[in-house]
Amino acid sequence: MITSPTVHSLYGEALTSLLASQQGAHQYEVLPLGEARKHMRTVERVCELAARMKLDRRGLLVAVGGGVCSDIVTFAASMIRRGIDHLRIPTTLIGQVDAGIGIKGAVNLQGLKSFVGCFHPPAGVLLDRAFLQSLSIHAIREGLAEVLKMALVRDAELFARLERCGTQLVASRFQTPTLDGEQVVDQSIRLMLAELQQNPFEDLSSQRLVDMGHTFSPTLEERSRFRISHGDAVAVDMALTCAIAAELGLMSIHDAKRFIGLLVQLGLPVASPLLTVDACRDAIRSVVAHRRGHLNLVTPMRIGAATFLDQEPMTHRLLKAALARVTAFERELHSITVTPPKSSVRFLETGNATPAL
Amino acid sequence: MITSPTVHSLYGEALTSLLASQQGAHQYEVLPLGEARKHMRTVERVCELAARMKLDRRGLLVAVGGGVCSDIVTFAASMIRRGIDHLRIPTTLIGQVDAGIGIKGAVNLQGLKSFVGCFHPPAGVLLDRAFLQSLSIHAIREGLAEVLKMALVRDAELFARLERCGTQLVASRFQTPTLDGEQVVDQSIRLMLAELQQNPFEDLSSQRLVDMGHTFSPTLEERSRFRISHGDAVAVDMALTCAIAAELGLMSIHDAKRFIGLLVQLGLPVASPLLTVDACRDAIRSVVAHRRGHLNLVTPMRIGAATFLDQEPMTHRLLKAALARVTAFERELHSITVTPPKSSVRFLETGNATPAL
Repeated sequence: MITSPTVHSLYGEALTSLLASQQGAHQYEVLPLGEARKHMRTVERVCELAARMKLDRRGLLVAVGGGVCSDIVTFAASMIRRGIDHLRIPTTLIGQVDAGIGIKGAVNLQGLKSFVGCFHPPAGVLLDRAFLQSLSIHAIREGLAEVLKMALVRDAELFARLERCGTQLVASRFQTPTLDGEQVVDQSIRLMLAELQQNPFEDLSSQRLVDMGHTFSPTLEERSRFRISHGDAVAVDMALTCAIAAELGLMSIHDAKRFIGLLVQLGLPVASPLLTVDACRDAIRSVVAHRRGHLNLVTPMRIGAATFLDQEPMTHRLLKAALARVTAFERELHSITVTPPKSSVRFLETGNATPAL
Repeated sequence: MITSPTVHSLYGEALTSLLASQQGAHQYEVLPLGEARKHMRTVERVCELAARMKLDRRGLLVAVGGGVCSDIVTFAASMIRRGIDHLRIPTTLIGQVDAGIGIKGAVNLQGLKSFVGCFHPPAGVLLDRAFLQSLSIHAIREGLAEVLKMALVRDAELFARLERCGTQLVASRFQTPTLDGEQVVDQSIRLMLAELQQNPFEDLSSQRLVDMGHTFSPTLEERSRFRISHGDAVAVDMALTCAIAAELGLMSIHDAKRFIGLLVQLGLPVASPLLTVDACRDAIRSVVAHRRGHLNLVTPMRIGAATFLDQEPMTHRLLKAALARVTAFERELHSITVTPPKSSVRFLETGNATPAL
């Protein structure tokens, strides 16, 4: 069982006593993780632990933690004795709705996001919303970015629900309103799995709706040396993509504003000084390489529906106008939107286990 | 294109001019390889080269070299962007009849042979017997050990042929007799592929005929810190396995002697002071872990046919008796067998490109 220092400090006792109650040899390891440690050396370290235990082909790795923990453990499990089983227990919202439920694992190499990795389905994924109570508000927002992604490309109703209760879900860490918390997570997972199942190994098509928000974000993460978190980068990417769609007349300005408005309302970033026109063009070159020569930019047409742009040239002028549009929207929105209630910040500081609202 | 310093010194010019005649970006890299460098760091180095080239998903790795080169490149290709294509051009006999034609790649970890790896089929394998001319006699013998493995478990005729012309094939580096050289390699590959195709991912069964010679050899290689080469270790393992079969009455003493006799005649080792009874028992524990709780010792019944032993306890007494039997056979055989002709040694030293015989 591999976990991070943060998860260990919160759940270490519960996890080790759970392990102690199991039959057979087991080992519990706390590894420093985080995006900056998402590299081959950490994967190798997990493999070394397995080698020292002489883990056999029937051995099992268990990942308890966020997306990085899942990525590292999945990749390690894929290579130990050429592939052993693994279980994932995602403790973050992003893990529960995105990183933890797919079949992929990857690490960064030479500053390139997820350059090496694998497809290796988990034997199982245990999802428990109770874990979300111990997250920071920032981590909740990060996960929400991936939920908003699925809403934007597939589900206008989910989007409307988040407009209604997203602020409260953030502040309560998805504990209240209970039904909304449950259903938002469930629906997001359902939508994600439906997309992944169509093309699990990404070899049938390079047109993937789940790539929404994942065109400019890898380059943004790389250029920030992974100081900008994944969810934040995805939010910035989606805001820009909506603005591009609006520039091209594919999405109404009203819908673009509505989407960017919710990002702002929920406390997610929509722009970054690192995302220059040059950075955008670099990002495009890089995803074209990854998507077998095609851009296939997932572009919203309205809230809940998207298409793929491949032939449309992403000119300097277009990108510049779209970036300017996001900034203008943001300025306009900030002057009218209520920022997240202070109670959510207090909640984080007191570490109170029951929602403060 | 990844190759080793040895292959580079022999074929570097031909390879680089071949590459130069191709369209598209390419890069030629000479990496220090060898069993001692068959570890994650070398795989990562290949991935780093790919990252620096920003190799896309349509990129191709080409391995030109022996088994280690094939292992490293296969494993790297399996993880770059979660899997890109690779070609193999095996330049050694062991590469052409064994390591190069399967779908596996692996490296050693914490002194454990092939502890981490992948299943990743090559896009193609180019087999050219002409490469064998530049091999050392030792490398030819190593490859022959894998050919003898297939003969022992599946093909009495192939074995008889090697009894007739094996010595000449070794000395001529498989160039003469031409027809025998061709057909021995072809038949060995055919037998190997027929076995691999039944269970390519090794998940359908832990009973694999191609595991003959691969029960005691990994531990022998590990204990020698990989100074004993793979083919030599496989030969020692097969000799011991024949002796175990003879001890158990599963194989006639005549056949066991005949097999061990050919190993000796071809200049392959049949025993090692490192392969003690303790080492054998360690090896058994280790393969049981790898074979999902089963020993499944591939045990010859006669030349050309084998069975699997799972329930038979590999007692201290049995292993000791079998090891003693090999030593006794060897002593007896050495007193009557003609050692390989001196011409083969001269041939190696002069580096003559055409067979000396």
